[in-house]
Amino acid sequence: MRYIVDCDTGIDDAVALVSLIRLLRGEPDSRLIGVTASYGNVTMDTSVRNSLAVLALFGASDVPVYPGVEHALGMRSFEVSPGVSFIHGRNGLGGQRIPDSSRKPEQMHAAEFMARAAKKYGQDLTIIATGAFTNLADALRLRPQMAQEVSRIVLMGTALAVPGSVNQWTEANVGQDPEAARQVLQSGANLLVVGRDVTTTTLLTRRQTQAWARSGTDRGAFLAGMLDWYIHTYEINFSGLPGCYISDPTAVVLAVHPELATLCLHRRLTALTGGPACGRTLVDVSYHQGTDPRTSVVLEIDNDKFMTLLLGALSAAVA
Amino acid sequence: MRYIVDCDTGIDDAVALVSLIRLLRGEPDSRLIGVTASYGNVTMDTSVRNSLAVLALFGASDVPVYPGVEHALGMRSFEVSPGVSFIHGRNGLGGQRIPDSSRKPEQMHAAEFMARAAKKYGQDLTIIATGAFTNLADALRLRPQMAQEVSRIVLMGTALAVPGSVNQWTEANVGQDPEAARQVLQSGANLLVVGRDVTTTTLLTRRQTQAWARSGTDRGAFLAGMLDWYIHTYEINFSGLPGCYISDPTAVVLAVHPELATLCLHRRLTALTGGPACGRTLVDVSYHQGTDPRTSVVLEIDNDKFMTLLLGALSAAVA
Repeated sequence: MRYIVDCDTGIDDAVALVSLIRLLRGEPDSRLIGVTASYGNVTMDTSVRNSLAVLALFGASDVPVYPGVEHALGMRSFEVSPGVSFIHGRNGLGGQRIPDSSRKPEQMHAAEFMARAAKKYGQDLTIIATGAFTNLADALRLRPQMAQEVSRIVLMGTALAVPGSVNQWTEANVGQDPEAARQVLQSGANLLVVGRDVTTTTLLTRRQTQAWARSGTDRGAFLAGMLDWYIHTYEINFSGLPGCYISDPTAVVLAVHPELATLCLHRRLTALTGGPACGRTLVDVSYHQGTDPRTSVVLEIDNDKFMTLLLGALSAAVA
Repeated sequence: MRYIVDCDTGIDDAVALVSLIRLLRGEPDSRLIGVTASYGNVTMDTSVRNSLAVLALFGASDVPVYPGVEHALGMRSFEVSPGVSFIHGRNGLGGQRIPDSSRKPEQMHAAEFMARAAKKYGQDLTIIATGAFTNLADALRLRPQMAQEVSRIVLMGTALAVPGSVNQWTEANVGQDPEAARQVLQSGANLLVVGRDVTTTTLLTRRQTQAWARSGTDRGAFLAGMLDWYIHTYEINFSGLPGCYISDPTAVVLAVHPELATLCLHRRLTALTGGPACGRTLVDVSYHQGTDPRTSVVLEIDNDKFMTLLLGALSAAVA
């Protein structure tokens, strides 16, 4: 399987990239063919810079990074919100400094790269999106048939039965561009939706980051420093939670190991693009009386196996 | 098993009562020991009147009916909203006229009846609530241990991953009294939650009501006339849906046949009692990292078996 990750590299996106690089080492026929840059946790430009730097630090400087759109459909610009900047730090990596990569970004646009990859690899391609879904919506406009061509699109986003991260109903990646989210959710693609319904059942604690800090490597110091920053913001924002939710890395682990999903809802989703609950994701009750086999909304995972896989990958990556 | 139904008898509450009376004929050790009156589709007084009349028409005038509270916790009064009055008709029964029962309402208050029944029957008692949850919240205040004593509380209410019936996030029974809903959802009782997440997968059409209309009985004419009215309001409110959702009867069928639930979410719920999303029901992420085995939120049912049971019960009831 070929993978593309479309991300706004932020702390948990960085951890997701590291996890994926390592998980794919155990899958001889799989590889990460490109990273595309979205916006949300950081600007698109910072996402490009951070993705290249993280890939280089973790031995994957052969992976090309493609710049994407800078803002939502119908918007003219994007600025990182103060709340998001607090969580990810101004550089997106919790203040951790890592060297720029010697690799330059590609010339091709993210959406065009996705569309070309869909044509070339078809059912051998999985796209994982962990930022605003604007690049994906653009790619689906460029090449509508890619919804049917690709094996699966894994979305980190949505909040159905749980509070959102922006407010009581809006999750951040959907909230950045509800219209793009709506288009992707309604595209007919084979969707694996990994949102807050399941990430709120996960937990990463300082006990785990301490092991990486003790590894004595640059990689270990980077990963631990970044995640300790992230956990600290949770301690302030979610008093009582003894760690942080695992967001983007959950999408990556489930993309490679979908069998870890133990409870899925199979109904077509949509996103509200206006009105007082703008940004809410919900079941599209107008679509179908019953189930939509092409949409799998993950509600529960095998948390023990998930943590074993994730921590194993990260521990190997920092060694 | 003993059953109590707490309802705001409205059209679908009436159909739920009829369904339950008939379903319990096939369960020799089960009986409906009382109906308690809530408000929402109609006023509490109209609920008492309609429940008594429906029970009498369908041969269950031995079942006592207990008056309940007239309005939400913290409110001073209640009026049926114009939208609800449109759906259920001014008399709550879609304009269908049926005789008053010769039976009078009981003197005891609904909440006291529930609390006494919980003490007397314990694990042999199931309470089904299909109106505002104010009586239930009152009963749980009168006798907090009833949350543990009773076998199960079945709630028709909530909208998690689907639009509400009041707005994009609020379901009507929760919206009438979000604080009561919150108290019941957080009571620790063994909850079977049958909300719009599952009722939006059900459908009752005119093809089905026509068979009852042709039965030539008063009961058949009543049931068909009431449900044709209800379906007509759906044709106006939900253009494109070729019938109506089955709300309260779904809760009743699942109370007697919980094995029909094929997909359940086991997480503790809460209801928002203020703020812009007041009335939204969602997972209480502060409660627990994982699952709550005492809460079963039904997301999918075996629709074929469900319809066979429901239509069988209603067809037998009108014969």
